[in-house]
Amino acid sequence: MMQDKHYLMIPGPTPVPPAVAAAMSRPMIGHRTDDFAAMHKRIVERLRVVFQTGNDIFILTNSGTGGMEAAVANTVSPGDRVLALVTGNFGERFARIAREYGAEVDEVHFGWGNCVDLKAVEEKLSSARYKVVLATQNETSTGVVNDIAGIGALVGKTSALLLVDGISGVGGIEIKMDEWNVDVLVTASQKALMLPPGLAMVAVSPKAWEVVAGNKSPRFYLSLPAAKKACEKWNTAYTPAVSLFAGLDAALEMMMAEGMDNVYARHMLMARATRAAVRALGLEQLAPEEAASPVVTAVKSPAGVDGDDIRKVLRKEYGVTFAGGQGILKGKIFRIAHMGFADKMDVIIAISALEMALARIGQPVDLGSGVRAAQKVFLGGNE
Amino acid sequence: MMQDKHYLMIPGPTPVPPAVAAAMSRPMIGHRTDDFAAMHKRIVERLRVVFQTGNDIFILTNSGTGGMEAAVANTVSPGDRVLALVTGNFGERFARIAREYGAEVDEVHFGWGNCVDLKAVEEKLSSARYKVVLATQNETSTGVVNDIAGIGALVGKTSALLLVDGISGVGGIEIKMDEWNVDVLVTASQKALMLPPGLAMVAVSPKAWEVVAGNKSPRFYLSLPAAKKACEKWNTAYTPAVSLFAGLDAALEMMMAEGMDNVYARHMLMARATRAAVRALGLEQLAPEEAASPVVTAVKSPAGVDGDDIRKVLRKEYGVTFAGGQGILKGKIFRIAHMGFADKMDVIIAISALEMALARIGQPVDLGSGVRAAQKVFLGGNE
Repeated sequence: MMQDKHYLMIPGPTPVPPAVAAAMSRPMIGHRTDDFAAMHKRIVERLRVVFQTGNDIFILTNSGTGGMEAAVANTVSPGDRVLALVTGNFGERFARIAREYGAEVDEVHFGWGNCVDLKAVEEKLSSARYKVVLATQNETSTGVVNDIAGIGALVGKTSALLLVDGISGVGGIEIKMDEWNVDVLVTASQKALMLPPGLAMVAVSPKAWEVVAGNKSPRFYLSLPAAKKACEKWNTAYTPAVSLFAGLDAALEMMMAEGMDNVYARHMLMARATRAAVRALGLEQLAPEEAASPVVTAVKSPAGVDGDDIRKVLRKEYGVTFAGGQGILKGKIFRIAHMGFADKMDVIIAISALEMALARIGQPVDLGSGVRAAQKVFLGGNE
Repeated sequence: MMQDKHYLMIPGPTPVPPAVAAAMSRPMIGHRTDDFAAMHKRIVERLRVVFQTGNDIFILTNSGTGGMEAAVANTVSPGDRVLALVTGNFGERFARIAREYGAEVDEVHFGWGNCVDLKAVEEKLSSARYKVVLATQNETSTGVVNDIAGIGALVGKTSALLLVDGISGVGGIEIKMDEWNVDVLVTASQKALMLPPGLAMVAVSPKAWEVVAGNKSPRFYLSLPAAKKACEKWNTAYTPAVSLFAGLDAALEMMMAEGMDNVYARHMLMARATRAAVRALGLEQLAPEEAASPVVTAVKSPAGVDGDDIRKVLRKEYGVTFAGGQGILKGKIFRIAHMGFADKMDVIIAISALEMALARIGQPVDLGSGVRAAQKVFLGGNE
């Protein structure tokens, strides 16, 4: 395999565009300067377009999990009742963080590969008074996208706050924070936003602020009131990851130039082509079609085959990296990301490499049939 | 002023060497890969040389304050008695974090510009039983370096843990974690380690682990037990800032090639030259000579002059950025960093620009006299 010919197709970190890498390589600047403040302001204004919100958005220097913890630490106090809507690994993590902060967590698990059932949410919400509801927009571990609009419509009728982990979705899957009643929306840099890991973005609704301001859990580095105070002058409470901010500025510039509608359509097209190819190869996707993620496709390993063996061949022979299964799905699925700095040819690479890897491990495969199915979607696709 | 001719001389973020910028621009890799694990292991082994320790070292994706909070959240529970040795802004911050976690904090403030008085520490330690002692190695806000060896010798005789904020010192000022009885040592990427901000390093002694394992404060993203478990396979508990890790790997490679003794000698030489130049210009340094920092020199503004006015001229006319005063020292001092990717010519630039800026604002100045004093130190210096 040729040196440096690598194709990273995991659901984060995702490949970094050259323009973003160049921006991050600019000479360092101080973070208490007018130049930094101007960049910070521009970034937040553009993130508001992505989040479809007029709310405060804070950029924290930590990875997505730190953003999830910021959402919890600033809204949950010991003894609070929390409803956790769980569809996989990251939903479980959100619930675990709430328990760490002393919440009484009602965890409703919809099963790995399924999406949140709105009827169950409605029943739960009418059965008890929750302070906070936790949901995952895109469950990366299963390639399932949840109906945040539907969940938000239900939670919005109650006094509960809706906290959404949008880490692997935001920027690749449309979200309307304000219209959908999302109170705290969390995302991170290394997914659809096309950056290396290291930044989390946390947006906060006015309804959430009423709770955040007086919340009793300890919080210092992840304090949203501290972030808000600093942000009044486009400052940050603590030293920001300056080079990642510069990269984010460049990435958002690219996204604005493409137009968010086009960004979302590109992701949906790649996902449709990937699913068509998977079907053509006689493989089965994990998620139901109606809840299949636009940014990552989870595929069941053929009977008797360990998905990790397919991944090893892909990486070693073709330089292609897929993600494996997490938790109970380890070895049983592999996941193909089409997220961020990715377009049609990346799908072609993924599928053709998959075809060859299947052949290499002795699986029956009609070489080129998956690629052809993807091509048909692209040729007839809604570009 | 020519475009892109900037000289960043603040005590973090510091300039990034070209080799480090290049390493950070390498294509993204997954963080659950053998390549990442090998890099992670190499980084920790080299950090052990810098920290002079055999202890566990964890690299957290957040800025230094997050590292300070990790130190506190994993060792302090509500009601614990904490002794905070404060010599400026960052000592105050450490104490504030401990209070946020419910500690009863005895805050001993030695005054802005002074260092910790060991006699006072000895008295305090004999007067009460503390669970934790907080100290700052290099108080960035005043350009004062504290005697961690002396503090550690005293604290080591008690059951208390010594938590040291080494954020602006480690890598530029020698520290011997094990020999000096430091139990938790925190540093960050954007100072003497020559990286952009975004990483904190936290080292933990066996004595500290006994407390950390069962500590009762909420901690998830900043959990040291979670970091330890992941680190067994050179993994990280949560998604790491991959590009900053790659940069850290390259920066440590540079430091190992130079040799840590040479790194420390270079910083001390720059500091001596800066102080000689400041004196030759008739200006006064804030710190007493015996506690003057090797990595940042705080200089009192001339009588009747606002230090921020000098800084404005420096930045606008010469592209040189010094730091201002913080807290009660705002406007009263300016701070010249000689930290990280800095050598003799950076001192010459700083001093000659300072001479011209003083002339510009109408202060009497013997042009070239500061530069000459620095040159003499370099020519007679202990290289």
